[in-house]
Amino acid sequence: MTNQEILSRIDHTLLKAVASWEDIKNLCDEALRYKTASVCIPPSYIQRVHEAYSPLTICTVIGFPLGYSVTAAKAREAEEALAAGALEIDMVVNIGDVKNQDFERVQKEIETIRKTAGSQTLKVIVETCYLTEAEKIRLCGIVTAAGADYIKTSTGFGTGGAVLEDILLFKKHIGPNVKIKAAGGIRTKADMEAFLNAGCHRIGTSSAATLL
Amino acid sequence: MTNQEILSRIDHTLLKAVASWEDIKNLCDEALRYKTASVCIPPSYIQRVHEAYSPLTICTVIGFPLGYSVTAAKAREAEEALAAGALEIDMVVNIGDVKNQDFERVQKEIETIRKTAGSQTLKVIVETCYLTEAEKIRLCGIVTAAGADYIKTSTGFGTGGAVLEDILLFKKHIGPNVKIKAAGGIRTKADMEAFLNAGCHRIGTSSAATLL
Repeated sequence: MTNQEILSRIDHTLLKAVASWEDIKNLCDEALRYKTASVCIPPSYIQRVHEAYSPLTICTVIGFPLGYSVTAAKAREAEEALAAGALEIDMVVNIGDVKNQDFERVQKEIETIRKTAGSQTLKVIVETCYLTEAEKIRLCGIVTAAGADYIKTSTGFGTGGAVLEDILLFKKHIGPNVKIKAAGGIRTKADMEAFLNAGCHRIGTSSAATLL
Repeated sequence: MTNQEILSRIDHTLLKAVASWEDIKNLCDEALRYKTASVCIPPSYIQRVHEAYSPLTICTVIGFPLGYSVTAAKAREAEEALAAGALEIDMVVNIGDVKNQDFERVQKEIETIRKTAGSQTLKVIVETCYLTEAEKIRLCGIVTAAGADYIKTSTGFGTGGAVLEDILLFKKHIGPNVKIKAAGGIRTKADMEAFLNAGCHRIGTSSAATLL
């Protein structure tokens, strides 16, 4: 796999609480230079990036990273993000609802954000490190039924990140219209290739530009 | 200090992403039994706790724990929380704005949430582990000027929690109408006493009921 093939699948990511505008500008300069799929940035920087780096595809995060804000608040976050210039929305499911086995509630929430996002890309972070295999399988069905574009493994803020085993499980249980994004702990070129070869369409990492 | 004196200052806290309704009910039962100041819970559980445990004071978190959702989204989260039955709002400042030295923006955001919260209690989490001493001092002034009820040290999800040194610094630089809440890493009775004796009015911890 060439470096450019890998880079074209990378959501070039900086989601630290302390990220300054200088840090975000460096990220965006790298994204332009290396032609990554997108920059994945905090909601409060979308407007500024949209103005200063109009060619970039902006991805952002909603209900991040704990997933337990209410649906109306997540919808408002998504609306604001889209209005400011985001084209891709990575939302976190309500993990408490998953643990309560209240899957109807989980699906309704994703459907609400799906409507809010319209034709823009919606990725649903399920945070695999906290899930049983049965819950992962159930969420594959729910993410598919709710019409999301991607299922995404991890926030990078949980107790674990992406593992290849989960990608193979997702592939078995998602519908044909759902793609896979791996994120969390992916730091080497070998990792990136392994996840892409396993069937991921996107990779979320902060390490791409440094490594390739 | 008696156990009851300590407990009456505790925000009895469960903010894990995986918290189930069973976990939250246990927390609320303990809060009733031990007469803590409040329960501090995820936004998506407020409604259910308000219905099932009407005598409890409900505290919740906004823009938590990374602080970088936009002001309009934080305001919507706060509105939803208050409408569902929360009486206390712990909001996280936008730490990126602090790092950009854009203190006007930080203050305006707190003022917006202050208006939204009305006469309910507003606590502002500054996440000390990421701040320089100068930034901490500046934020003491901003939290005071914006009319918040409390300055709070930490989310418990950062790289560090409450330290006594910061409490002493806050005491020197906040106004007379601002109280202090210590949170993050407070797990022993000796810690709780030390923070209360240093001048904190509230302590956020998940360990109170177990220890006392």
